[in-house]
Amino acid sequence: MYTLYYSPGTASIAVHLVLLELGVPYQLELVDFDRKLQRSEPYLRLNPLGQVPTLLIDGQPYAESAALLMMLADRHPEARLAPPPGTARRNEWYQWLVFQSNVLGASFRNWFYPSDLGSAEHLPAVKAALQSRVEGAWERLEKHLAGHGPYLLGDELSTADLQLIMYMRWSRNMPRSALDWPALKQFAKLLRERNSWKQLCDIEKLDDWRE
Amino acid sequence: MYTLYYSPGTASIAVHLVLLELGVPYQLELVDFDRKLQRSEPYLRLNPLGQVPTLLIDGQPYAESAALLMMLADRHPEARLAPPPGTARRNEWYQWLVFQSNVLGASFRNWFYPSDLGSAEHLPAVKAALQSRVEGAWERLEKHLAGHGPYLLGDELSTADLQLIMYMRWSRNMPRSALDWPALKQFAKLLRERNSWKQLCDIEKLDDWRE
Repeated sequence: MYTLYYSPGTASIAVHLVLLELGVPYQLELVDFDRKLQRSEPYLRLNPLGQVPTLLIDGQPYAESAALLMMLADRHPEARLAPPPGTARRNEWYQWLVFQSNVLGASFRNWFYPSDLGSAEHLPAVKAALQSRVEGAWERLEKHLAGHGPYLLGDELSTADLQLIMYMRWSRNMPRSALDWPALKQFAKLLRERNSWKQLCDIEKLDDWRE
Repeated sequence: MYTLYYSPGTASIAVHLVLLELGVPYQLELVDFDRKLQRSEPYLRLNPLGQVPTLLIDGQPYAESAALLMMLADRHPEARLAPPPGTARRNEWYQWLVFQSNVLGASFRNWFYPSDLGSAEHLPAVKAALQSRVEGAWERLEKHLAGHGPYLLGDELSTADLQLIMYMRWSRNMPRSALDWPALKQFAKLLRERNSWKQLCDIEKLDDWRE
């Protein structure tokens, strides 16, 4: 039913976590970055940007991790990983998914891929600006979780939380990790205690930032 | 029911267009960029990033234009500006909204706001990289519309199209405008012939790129 094209530790993590939370059958296909297979002709036919993840749903390829977190939640309403359409909580869910994708996703992409901004290595001013943008997002999420947590939508886990734990992990080697913010640290504890996280780390062999 | 905090020609355009397409009552609140009101305390309480648009729905503020295009479509299913949840076309709709937001939205933001990347003005290499990323998106959209148009989802208009016409307009003073691509040009013709576009240009006093 599902085939996930992934690379360990990348943006495919969030989608992989959703599949594990759902407990549905899926196949994994490794996209080997060491061999630059994300730029190979067969893969570009599935994903014209040459990014992971790609998710095959009933044989059709879809991309953009935030969008995949919406598609999967819609296809499995019984798992309650998203509020029902037309509700106020649904609005919040959309907002957090897009906010994280726009602010964290875009900034991390710039941070990790200087070539996207035309240079081999970032100037210090660029690094500082990107760091500030990421930390601004942690500030905002900290304030929100401290007042309205423990999850982004309050008491109920949603796919937006699985997106957040992915971005938090990406900050682990930055000057300030997301774990420096106390409500975010508590959020990470909750998420990393789940079976889905443990399974993910086992399958993708993610040894650091495991718990 | 709805109050849209906007600034003419900005990312509020797409949301404004949806409100006009829906034909629902709404109030407009100008956020005066000349007076930097997007950074004022009262506005930051509505929108912590200090961006437009903000949409009040039943008195609650929501941000992130791509998310607002999802919320409004869900609240007015009879307008058919989005496919029903759980369908393959719904998956495509999510994907295009997030793709545009991630690739076009993020690149345009960098293009127009060098300070987000820590400089007063972009180095030529940065400009070239951002231009290339935007043009790559036009290439992809051109190929898609030429084969599967006239709208992003084929025969039926959706909120993703109203997002696209906004980003296309933003390219009008770039080295290559989106209108250089023939299927995109045809798409712009269809969208700019609609009443919603004419009303938008009248209300926001957008005189260039009107038709």
